[in-house]
Amino acid sequence: MGKKAAAKDLATTLEKALRVHQGFVLADRAPASTPGFTKGKKTAVAAQETTAAELDDLQERMYAESTQGGRRNVLLVVQGMDTSGKGGIMRHVVGSLDPQGVTHHAFKKPTREELSHPFLWRVRNALPPAGSVGVFDRSHYEDVLVARVHNLVPPATISRRYGQIDGFEQTLVDNGTTVIKVMLHVSREEQGERLAGRLDRVDKQWKFNPNDVDERGFWPAYQEAYQLVMDKTSTDAAPWYVVPADHKWYARLAVHHLLLHHLRAMDPQWPAPSYDVSEQKARLASS
Amino acid sequence: MGKKAAAKDLATTLEKALRVHQGFVLADRAPASTPGFTKGKKTAVAAQETTAAELDDLQERMYAESTQGGRRNVLLVVQGMDTSGKGGIMRHVVGSLDPQGVTHHAFKKPTREELSHPFLWRVRNALPPAGSVGVFDRSHYEDVLVARVHNLVPPATISRRYGQIDGFEQTLVDNGTTVIKVMLHVSREEQGERLAGRLDRVDKQWKFNPNDVDERGFWPAYQEAYQLVMDKTSTDAAPWYVVPADHKWYARLAVHHLLLHHLRAMDPQWPAPSYDVSEQKARLASS
Repeated sequence: MGKKAAAKDLATTLEKALRVHQGFVLADRAPASTPGFTKGKKTAVAAQETTAAELDDLQERMYAESTQGGRRNVLLVVQGMDTSGKGGIMRHVVGSLDPQGVTHHAFKKPTREELSHPFLWRVRNALPPAGSVGVFDRSHYEDVLVARVHNLVPPATISRRYGQIDGFEQTLVDNGTTVIKVMLHVSREEQGERLAGRLDRVDKQWKFNPNDVDERGFWPAYQEAYQLVMDKTSTDAAPWYVVPADHKWYARLAVHHLLLHHLRAMDPQWPAPSYDVSEQKARLASS
Repeated sequence: MGKKAAAKDLATTLEKALRVHQGFVLADRAPASTPGFTKGKKTAVAAQETTAAELDDLQERMYAESTQGGRRNVLLVVQGMDTSGKGGIMRHVVGSLDPQGVTHHAFKKPTREELSHPFLWRVRNALPPAGSVGVFDRSHYEDVLVARVHNLVPPATISRRYGQIDGFEQTLVDNGTTVIKVMLHVSREEQGERLAGRLDRVDKQWKFNPNDVDERGFWPAYQEAYQLVMDKTSTDAAPWYVVPADHKWYARLAVHHLLLHHLRAMDPQWPAPSYDVSEQKARLASS
């Protein structure tokens, strides 16, 4: 099997290995595991490089489609506990895409204005235009994660939100968006080491917030909230992928290949020119 | 001289060589020249790689500053005729930055809503947040370029706009923004070849617009309009750089080093932690 065929298999393999189906149990997916991949970091980095040009080409085709009226785009939702590696995904996976076709949005604690609207309001405002890859660093899922763990809204409101999210995402899909939802699944032990690492380095201390230690105390409640998210919002239209994230290189490999898998499935095509090529060649030659 | 010192010199050299001072004559800057650089493409690419980590580090420091209340940011304005390589700068120079600290905005023909506001309205709405590098692919300068060439507004309005732009940019600078304005300076001959190249390739035809040939007919008027822009809006606060762009590798080298030069001058620092490090270490250890 050539390199390209192997790469094709890897994207399919990882997509199958990581996708959340009914009956999925979060506690059974080991954060230090590397589902669908038996090699180490070096091979993982090489596998990403092998398919970087193909990913770039697919992204540009999707963008080109949109210039001729194509409506398709991609929404990549990235969730995970503090230090799970969301920033690294943004830098090393999203960062390898052409910035002209990417919109990146980091959702923080809602502002007063955002809170005065329904919870999906700020998310709708940040959706990517046609042809683009939109990336959410945190998302509307915070409204059933932190909101659940800290009882920010009544339980009945949380319960209703799952269905509202499913309906919202179904509408996106109906309108041409491929929705890819990734949970970076880190272990409590690994988080402890990463937080300690931040406290040790002058160039990392700014990333640390004392609140991170408080939140760490709610670990089991967050795992439970994530389990409910998987139970209730991993749909055929908008599936979740739980990506073991104790090995950063594996998480990056996985998200890169999830994007690749879905862009391949979209199979975007260079649009036919809306003008007569020979006529324009003649005009240009005499210009 | 070590590699790093040489790199330092290159950024300074290119900045000096490309900056527009009073008395600058656009017609005297040859689009195929490579001011401040005597080597070829290979060395240029290597020079960018040598300083990529430093640029990344500076960008992250500026971003980190903003998390502790720092207000500084960068606005990179990129202008140029069709095919001058704006897209390549976005892909290969801006694309090497961390997307979490970049906002990219491409200004198209103004919408009806945009036209109903003063010309700087849409530009203000697209300014980067503190800590970020904002990149404009075209900008408010279109309002004194295409607007002048095609008489879209009365001459007196155009005349007033130069001063309005200078005042606007001065305010940005006063508020902590480093404004870097780049004109990619391509020759008419090179444009002709690039347009012909687009017409020849299925994966490039979507980038071609019959209007590009019409606009080509206004070449001298555009050069004159650019000359006026240089005369009237290259200020100490917000200087222009005219980057010869017939060699794409040179233009990328130049813009990379212009960013590097200005970020070095800003000299952003890792912010001091707003918490007691040993106290947090103890809390974390017992968590």
